[in-house]
Amino acid sequence: MSSIKRVAIVGGTHGNEFSGIYLLKKWQQQPQSISRPSFCSEMVFANPKAHQENKRYLDHDLNRQFGLADLNNPDLTSYEQCRAKAMNQQLGPKGNAQTDFIIDLHNTTSNMGPSLILLQSDEFNRKMGAYIKCKMPETVVEFEDYSSVDEHHFVSSIAKQGVIIEVGPQPQSVIRQDILDWMEALTQHVLDYVHLSNINALPELPETYEAFQYSETLTLPVNEKGERIGMVHKDVQDADFKPIYNGSAIFTLFNGEIITWDGDYEAYPHFINEAAYYDNNLAMSLARKITVKTSDE
Amino acid sequence: MSSIKRVAIVGGTHGNEFSGIYLLKKWQQQPQSISRPSFCSEMVFANPKAHQENKRYLDHDLNRQFGLADLNNPDLTSYEQCRAKAMNQQLGPKGNAQTDFIIDLHNTTSNMGPSLILLQSDEFNRKMGAYIKCKMPETVVEFEDYSSVDEHHFVSSIAKQGVIIEVGPQPQSVIRQDILDWMEALTQHVLDYVHLSNINALPELPETYEAFQYSETLTLPVNEKGERIGMVHKDVQDADFKPIYNGSAIFTLFNGEIITWDGDYEAYPHFINEAAYYDNNLAMSLARKITVKTSDE
Repeated sequence: MSSIKRVAIVGGTHGNEFSGIYLLKKWQQQPQSISRPSFCSEMVFANPKAHQENKRYLDHDLNRQFGLADLNNPDLTSYEQCRAKAMNQQLGPKGNAQTDFIIDLHNTTSNMGPSLILLQSDEFNRKMGAYIKCKMPETVVEFEDYSSVDEHHFVSSIAKQGVIIEVGPQPQSVIRQDILDWMEALTQHVLDYVHLSNINALPELPETYEAFQYSETLTLPVNEKGERIGMVHKDVQDADFKPIYNGSAIFTLFNGEIITWDGDYEAYPHFINEAAYYDNNLAMSLARKITVKTSDE
Repeated sequence: MSSIKRVAIVGGTHGNEFSGIYLLKKWQQQPQSISRPSFCSEMVFANPKAHQENKRYLDHDLNRQFGLADLNNPDLTSYEQCRAKAMNQQLGPKGNAQTDFIIDLHNTTSNMGPSLILLQSDEFNRKMGAYIKCKMPETVVEFEDYSSVDEHHFVSSIAKQGVIIEVGPQPQSVIRQDILDWMEALTQHVLDYVHLSNINALPELPETYEAFQYSETLTLPVNEKGERIGMVHKDVQDADFKPIYNGSAIFTLFNGEIITWDGDYEAYPHFINEAAYYDNNLAMSLARKITVKTSDE
């Protein structure tokens, strides 16, 4: 593992997720708080125009614009598609990036607490999860390693290594102190991990730890016209990372009927009833609980 | 008190407050559930265009457009200003309205639970508060009776009598089952009250009950450029209708400093950290706790 020399912290990828945006403002006043002796840090305010308009995005979700083909397609010219190209120039180019590590800061309206989302399960990331769980045990570590980093469309996929820090519950356009504090602490622990890893000074880590691995996404019940006819069942609301089983109530139709989950494994819903996913009628993501082996050795 | 013959239930005054909008859809399938023998009910979807765009409003906050002078001013031509005139024609005209009673359905991102907001403290409303508190004790009754109904700019001020049903916490653009259930139950109790009042068959009510009366609004701390430099203190967050006193922590600045409340009464914050009030840097409303005498007798 070559060492990490250049780190970027990205806030405001979604314009109405306020914690990262206000943390950037804070760190601009005290840049030493995000620097470490073994690397330099920069900050990027990803979607200032969406923030001005107090929206997630203007034309397209910025956090879906970083596929390699899209970055190289000159016909994609919406605001976020241009912003993605500009960020790729600033931090990338993807595939051969100047930036070694990207931290992308997000909020969710779901009750996910402080969550660390990792796009690959290599040893560097597995050790990071172990380190973070030691320092901040309330953190949930989730692997979304269903495709290679190159194939991901997320901001953090510009660099070879990166994480998504996802903290909730926080309504869009709100700053909650508890959520801001969690995001700041989690970011600091990630920066510490990168530094300690760089200088080969990681503390002893547990051999294994508990994490989650994304499995699938559930959509809300709709009628033949595509209109929603139900909502997330109240027993599942706010129960992010609590298990459901075949037969668990997951939706309540507006006519009172209850819909149960027809699955064949112990599933852990998260991003439950996330406001931003309403465009697509997404209800929640599901994960499996996994035991992660920290080290290759 | 002349009896109430025509009731209107208004949903979607703010396009991203989903509970009222989905309750209207539900009641359109079963209109008998909102009718009573002594009056007829109609439903009004107030701001369908804002809902389509998943926003509070397009040009102006619709729930501030019902001042009498504004309704009669032909130069006010934004979408919501036109919508207000159209609603005034349908339900009003204000001052001499066909509709006797308006229920306007709202959500808040604040932890206000089921709340009944009353714009005047006449005997009809005081008895309504008493009736609702008997049927649904978790309801908070708040009087915002600082000006006459005529002077109010709210949708419900079109009619001589009306209430605002305000239920939270619910992020914008989300449907939570618990919030939907509360809003539906509270609306049904209000309809029952109007009917029982019409036919002179109210049950025995307590002589007095506890309620709140709006006193003032606090704004977030800002710098000389008008930029926010702090947030609601974590001890106040979610503590709607819990008392604060002179010296209570209310804001945390981003630099870590804590700001305390400099007031001379026992105050009850509500609409704490409401997402929609961020445009104006509003932090919370304050109220006094009051003991309401139910009846004039």
